[in-house]
Amino acid sequence: MPGLDHVATPGLRPMAPAGLDSLLSPASVAIVGASPDPHRIRGQLLGLLQNNGFPGRIVPVNPSYTEVGGLPCVPTIAAAGGAPIDVALIAIPAAGVLAVLEECAAAGVRHAVVISSGFAEDDAAPPDLQDQVAALARRTGMRILGPNGEGFHNEVARVSATFSPAVDRAADTNPTAIRARIGIVAQSGGMGFALYNRGRALGLSFSCVVSTGNEADLTVAEILAHMAQDEDTAGILLFLESIRDPDRFAAAARAAAAAGKFIVAIKVGRSGVGKIAAASHTASMAGWDAGYDAMFARHGIVVASELEEALTLAAALAANPPAAGGRVAVVTISGGAGAWSADLLEAAGLSLPELGAATQAAIRAYIPSYGTARNPIDLTAGGAQGGGTLRTVELLLDDPAIDIVAVVTTLANPARVTLDGPALAALLARRRKPVLFYSYTLPSPLGRKVLAEAGAVICPSMALLARAAAALRDQARRTPYRAPPPFPLPDDAQQALAWPGASTEHAAKAFLAACGVAIAPSRLVSARSGLDEAGAALGFPLAAKIQSEAIPHKTEAGGVRLGIEDADALAAAYDAILQAAARHAPGAAIAGVLLERMAPPGVEMIVGVVRDPTFGPVVSVGAGGVTTELFKDVAYALAPLDEAGAAALIRTLRSAPLLEGFRGAAPADLDALARLVSLVSRVAHAGRDRISELELNPVLVHPAGQGCTVADALLVLSPAGPAGG
Amino acid sequence: MPGLDHVATPGLRPMAPAGLDSLLSPASVAIVGASPDPHRIRGQLLGLLQNNGFPGRIVPVNPSYTEVGGLPCVPTIAAAGGAPIDVALIAIPAAGVLAVLEECAAAGVRHAVVISSGFAEDDAAPPDLQDQVAALARRTGMRILGPNGEGFHNEVARVSATFSPAVDRAADTNPTAIRARIGIVAQSGGMGFALYNRGRALGLSFSCVVSTGNEADLTVAEILAHMAQDEDTAGILLFLESIRDPDRFAAAARAAAAAGKFIVAIKVGRSGVGKIAAASHTASMAGWDAGYDAMFARHGIVVASELEEALTLAAALAANPPAAGGRVAVVTISGGAGAWSADLLEAAGLSLPELGAATQAAIRAYIPSYGTARNPIDLTAGGAQGGGTLRTVELLLDDPAIDIVAVVTTLANPARVTLDGPALAALLARRRKPVLFYSYTLPSPLGRKVLAEAGAVICPSMALLARAAAALRDQARRTPYRAPPPFPLPDDAQQALAWPGASTEHAAKAFLAACGVAIAPSRLVSARSGLDEAGAALGFPLAAKIQSEAIPHKTEAGGVRLGIEDADALAAAYDAILQAAARHAPGAAIAGVLLERMAPPGVEMIVGVVRDPTFGPVVSVGAGGVTTELFKDVAYALAPLDEAGAAALIRTLRSAPLLEGFRGAAPADLDALARLVSLVSRVAHAGRDRISELELNPVLVHPAGQGCTVADALLVLSPAGPAGG
Repeated sequence: MPGLDHVATPGLRPMAPAGLDSLLSPASVAIVGASPDPHRIRGQLLGLLQNNGFPGRIVPVNPSYTEVGGLPCVPTIAAAGGAPIDVALIAIPAAGVLAVLEECAAAGVRHAVVISSGFAEDDAAPPDLQDQVAALARRTGMRILGPNGEGFHNEVARVSATFSPAVDRAADTNPTAIRARIGIVAQSGGMGFALYNRGRALGLSFSCVVSTGNEADLTVAEILAHMAQDEDTAGILLFLESIRDPDRFAAAARAAAAAGKFIVAIKVGRSGVGKIAAASHTASMAGWDAGYDAMFARHGIVVASELEEALTLAAALAANPPAAGGRVAVVTISGGAGAWSADLLEAAGLSLPELGAATQAAIRAYIPSYGTARNPIDLTAGGAQGGGTLRTVELLLDDPAIDIVAVVTTLANPARVTLDGPALAALLARRRKPVLFYSYTLPSPLGRKVLAEAGAVICPSMALLARAAAALRDQARRTPYRAPPPFPLPDDAQQALAWPGASTEHAAKAFLAACGVAIAPSRLVSARSGLDEAGAALGFPLAAKIQSEAIPHKTEAGGVRLGIEDADALAAAYDAILQAAARHAPGAAIAGVLLERMAPPGVEMIVGVVRDPTFGPVVSVGAGGVTTELFKDVAYALAPLDEAGAAALIRTLRSAPLLEGFRGAAPADLDALARLVSLVSRVAHAGRDRISELELNPVLVHPAGQGCTVADALLVLSPAGPAGG
Repeated sequence: MPGLDHVATPGLRPMAPAGLDSLLSPASVAIVGASPDPHRIRGQLLGLLQNNGFPGRIVPVNPSYTEVGGLPCVPTIAAAGGAPIDVALIAIPAAGVLAVLEECAAAGVRHAVVISSGFAEDDAAPPDLQDQVAALARRTGMRILGPNGEGFHNEVARVSATFSPAVDRAADTNPTAIRARIGIVAQSGGMGFALYNRGRALGLSFSCVVSTGNEADLTVAEILAHMAQDEDTAGILLFLESIRDPDRFAAAARAAAAAGKFIVAIKVGRSGVGKIAAASHTASMAGWDAGYDAMFARHGIVVASELEEALTLAAALAANPPAAGGRVAVVTISGGAGAWSADLLEAAGLSLPELGAATQAAIRAYIPSYGTARNPIDLTAGGAQGGGTLRTVELLLDDPAIDIVAVVTTLANPARVTLDGPALAALLARRRKPVLFYSYTLPSPLGRKVLAEAGAVICPSMALLARAAAALRDQARRTPYRAPPPFPLPDDAQQALAWPGASTEHAAKAFLAACGVAIAPSRLVSARSGLDEAGAALGFPLAAKIQSEAIPHKTEAGGVRLGIEDADALAAAYDAILQAAARHAPGAAIAGVLLERMAPPGVEMIVGVVRDPTFGPVVSVGAGGVTTELFKDVAYALAPLDEAGAAALIRTLRSAPLLEGFRGAAPADLDALARLVSLVSRVAHAGRDRISELELNPVLVHPAGQGCTVADALLVLSPAGPAGG
């Protein structure tokens, strides 16, 4: 049994957070308030721990009993005697928890698992109760899991420190298909153990399920870090509500990736939080999703929105090598199922190439003439008998034109399960490409068992099979994140970050120029008398724009005139702009009218930065113009980003073809845009304490080699803000 | 037992297709080639028919036996004697099928069900074999189901005329939740019976499952028409590959809607068919989906892409009243599940309003302080005990601010199923709004049974619960289709449809003008000498565009100049356009250069018509300009469409806000655009024999009251084409 040592293991586990092994694989567990009543949580804790075969010492603590569950019961934790207790399970009413924690710490208990509710999640609880728990952990060094969690279940070490009936091993008759174990870390115990429950039914194996609850002390990031280095964990499932320590989380995610472990995450709380109130378009569109999704993308964390989806992805990633590409061959015994699979696979971005002549000829040799050896391959029921399905899978495993094999069959009727389990197992053992399975009828227990014995999970739906195929392809395509060098903010730029609030375009552009962004020459004119000189200096045609911190959306306020051809038109425009501004924002302080030479034409894009409350600055790039908010074709990434990363981000846009030479147009200067996005992201990262929003809108991207023009800019500063990642 | 009478039933079933009752509820069934071997299809047919309790006469036909399955076996169908046979089941090799069908017809058999494969789906079969089957049906009046199908299963009349093991009633231990029966019509037998198999596991009841196979004679439309008037069928599930008789299908769909029966359809073959090769943007974007999806939308057919999705929608529609709106209340016992449900419901377009103070106060009375009475309502495990869940559902059923109730709970552990079945049944019996259920753990048999006894299905996933909620809301929002009056094509327009091929813009606009579409004055100039007179007559600024049938995409060919300000510029533009055309398409016939007064600005839209091979003309409206193909913001509807229908179609666009006064702009003339779309759809319908494509691109929609301008148009005619629906 691994992990019972309490000292840092040399060699393989140098990064192990001190002591989490003795939390999750303890030598001794005390149950505070242990009860003989199986209908109470405190009774269920003892029952599960005993029945699931915990091999260590169990200490019931309850002054009302001398014996519980056949074990001697002590009145207090201090009376336990022997070696210090590794884990104390606490499920007593919230009001008594602090006192018990103090007793535990005094008795040298290493870890407490607080299952009790009634802390920060409870409006009626003392407001500082949870803070006191946190302070106790810091003060005493006793690490605390919870409160308001469901504990944990370590299937390797047989530690069921939870009341969740999902982990009752006696009731688990599910066959195991995948022996590589998956760890679960969940901020909702209900959902964490639901993942375990449904995962077992799918045929998955688990190492450890940990419910972190309110995270007064131990966070999901620390448990993730533990699983990243845990030899028994091949991949990790996360159920997240919010991440409290993004830097630690990022380090743990990097450690998991370095160890070759996948992470599949469900993140909830996407709705109802309310949109960020923001001055810029990109920020107001972003919501919180942008930050989390950008963080997931950076670390290669696969995002799921459904329990079965998360489990299917985990199963596919645990059981299969990555796919070299997205070319799928479907093997089926129903023409209708074949056509349907093709639809769902192509909808998921995969392709079904027609098979080569040799493969087709080989298949035709053993199927009836009314079957088809094209792709999808319809063996027909007759063609599948006598090993036709496996023979076909074998041909496809050897066909270099196919990256992924999908077997779409019927496993409901025991008499028609035409797959030979041991032969399938032998075939799968030598696979160098993914093989995925689906049964359009509900698989019978026999069907499940045959496939499980061969090490194969049956995808719960055809759409999830397609999703898994896409994830296996994407896994191979991933390029790791490379951080650009830090950007030292020049002194001019530092000074520009001194005032709080929304700046004018003029000030924003001055800041950008100080940071090295190419900005067109301009003049800020605050008196009519300055127009002629400015016009002559800049040259016509000109753009004229109102400059006032009170008017962030200048066009809507009538504060913009474009294509001004001469001095007379300039004077008229100047007057009109000031009048419109006075109507729109009476009494607002006006810095002046900004004059700029009209930019040459280009593809209108938008580049922005929004500060995510958890992850700090998030850079965005998207299609500009009036349709920005309608089509929301904007891509987000955590700052900073290097140029290659910025170019890759730009290429994810639906409007990317506009930059690549669309419908006969000249290709635009995508490189210059990527340089700009990268520079903006580095600036935003360097100024993350002060920059609340930054938006360059529009950015006109000129033909290749001619750069881009920042036609307008907005900068919003905050007096102080979180530094973020 | 209904439906055993062979004469048309008066009163309730006046529209019954003659004889389908005696196909699906026969008094006698012959099995041609009946075999005692249960491993052969012909043996399975007899076994299922007998074991499932067919109450009529079974006649095994096989010269090799005198007795099969305990029944006397006759050598030929002619030797059967007695009353004419209602149904002959035929599963012999394809080569012998025609002869047997002749024998059956000669013996007065009413219907044949041909299960044999080896017809049109078989490249090696005689090319006219299936046509001969069809001709025989027409000649003899014997109706034929198949070939290459899996027969049918009538659960009401206990007729299992299929070899599918899915219908083995002895093996079906699933509890039934919903007693309203659903009919299944599938062009793939494998998928039809997979729907039955998974539907039974979900707790659905079925009337009849019919596999139509290759449809040599009987089509899915005829079976649908039968189910539309079948008293035992409350709703219908379709699995479609292609519809052969769209008019009959439309009539059947209308009959189902008139009878208050829902239709849920899975349509496959969306991929791989290849895109339509087309001159216009709308047509090349449409693919086949446009026609089918427009047809489904017209008839209120709910579209699903997954088996479980189709079944969940059918279950929700069969068990619930429509929802008055999209306001959902979630009742759960896990905060994590609540947050997650909210995400998925809001992603599906539903809202979770905070509950009113009275409802919140009532709930708070029986839940712990760490629960929440907001929405999602977290009762906590403690709060759900003692009937808390049902009490909450009752409060929500009575709360007029809630349209749909979602119960998200855990039904895995028998000890924790806190729902009282009979009390739940009583509550659901009086509901006037939908109540939907989901269990985040896998429901145990007991959990399923308790809910089934209360008449409730457990949704297979939270996302499907959300999808079902949206479908229940949409069902109530539907407005029935109203056909506009037919459009009589004027003589000028009739003549314009005389030539085949792609027309020039000039000819297309002349056709549209003849149909009453407002077209700006223009001149087609074919000699430089004509420019001055045309310029003077039209007035500057002008647009000039090459006119050649060989150059459908004029801009890409350099054949367009806009904003021509005077006569000199016009002459220069004329020369440049002709030179560009000569470079682009050397030797092409040039009709001339079309001159038009520049249109005033407007929102750029695109209006088009593409002729769907099955459904005839499909009208489209979408966002115009360079982004049309990138964002594919185009909506499709079957032609013809009235103005209200056109306006509703326009409002489904993501870019609709552009027309409604976006970001401070004046509202555009949406009414004029709707009139145009309706008129174009009526023209396309009237000219459906000749019009292959019609595209108005761009259409500039001016401010409200100022109409719209058809800036360019393209018309493609075919020598002859299907009339379509």
